[in-house]
Amino acid sequence: MKVIADLTVIPIGVGVSLSKYVAACEKVLSGAGLKINLHAYGTNIEGEWDEVMGAVKRCHEVLHEMGAPRVSSTLKVGTRTDRDQTMDDKVKSVREKL
Amino acid sequence: MKVIADLTVIPIGVGVSLSKYVAACEKVLSGAGLKINLHAYGTNIEGEWDEVMGAVKRCHEVLHEMGAPRVSSTLKVGTRTDRDQTMDDKVKSVREKL
Amino acid sequence: MKVIADLTVIPIGVGVSLSKYVAACEKVLSGAGLKINLHAYGTNIEGEWDEVMGAVKRCHEVLHEMGAPRVSSTLKVGTRTDRDQTMDDKVKSVREKL
Amino acid sequence: MKVIADLTVIPIGVGVSLSKYVAACEKVLSGAGLKINLHAYGTNIEGEWDEVMGAVKRCHEVLHEMGAPRVSSTLKVGTRTDRDQTMDDKVKSVREKL
Repeated sequence: MKVIADLTVIPIGVGVSLSKYVAACEKVLSGAGLKINLHAYGTNIEGEWDEVMGAVKRCHEVLHEMGAPRVSSTLKVGTRTDRDQTMDDKVKSVREKL
Repeated sequence: MKVIADLTVIPIGVGVSLSKYVAACEKVLSGAGLKINLHAYGTNIEGEWDEVMGAVKRCHEVLHEMGAPRVSSTLKVGTRTDRDQTMDDKVKSVREKL
Repeated sequence: MKVIADLTVIPIGVGVSLSKYVAACEKVLSGAGLKINLHAYGTNIEGEWDEVMGAVKRCHEVLHEMGAPRVSSTLKVGTRTDRDQTMDDKVKSVREKL
Repeated sequence: MKVIADLTVIPIGVGVSLSKYVAACEKVLSGAGLKINLHAYGTNIEGEWDEVMGAVKRCHEVLHEMGAPRVSSTLKVGTRTDRDQTMDDKVKSVREKL
């Protein structure tokens, strides 16, 4: 089952600057061979369900290893059975109607 | 790794009434032996990461089997390494300060 | 326009214990006369759009006044024009199908 | 109070193709003079709190006018008092650490 997802990860208890943690998570996601797209409030992810979820779990583990006592993520996950769709397709489909 | 999560699942393309789909997902979660708490905009879930995520995946599969061509979920996942905490602990901790 | 909402507020840069901040936000919401329901990963809110959004803004302001340099919230907002529905209706509608 | 936000809007009860509704919402946001960035699971928005929230409300109203009986949005809102930050700053700050 293919998924288009969006991940916002917030490490808690590590101060006010979170970018090095977000970058570490990005490396986990891209290192897992997933197609990703970083934006200003999270990261789009495209891939097979188990691979995406495995990488998200690894993000939490890595952030804890980096010293974050708490990690809170918001993950959106979209699946569809009617047709195949990529992240680029979704953006293009909206842009065509603007 | 233990997780406290919150799942809001939206089947798309099945009309305006979603409650039977949400109920089907509740059955998947409770049937997986997870501790859950239904509220007005989703469901709190407590359990081990892999069991929670396996049940969320099963929710998507079941909703597709019920005829939903698209399913979009928002999943919050919280993990912590500093101490053990239950869903009840979280609510109690806030209530004590009201 | 009536809304059923769900708010998860995370103050960033104030350490690992967030409950006093969440409690302060609860007081803002209930002080605004809104119907609320605290759960393990946020708070359900029922009310008119402008009143709900005004209270959410006030939450951010209060948390900054308490010393939080950053505040990140996830807010779900549901509106419907087909019929009137309360938070209790939503939960009951799912429970009847379990 | 300045906010960096992220909006995912889901009209319910209008079938499986949502792009024309998402495009209508994009027009509301850009028409309000807000800085926005469409991605594969939502739209980043930068602006003053009241202007952003006014535009999000208008999105719900427009989607109802287009025939959607229900609209469910997930809105992330981030505010900070320690320094001024743009959407571009946030992405750049992560990219520098990759």
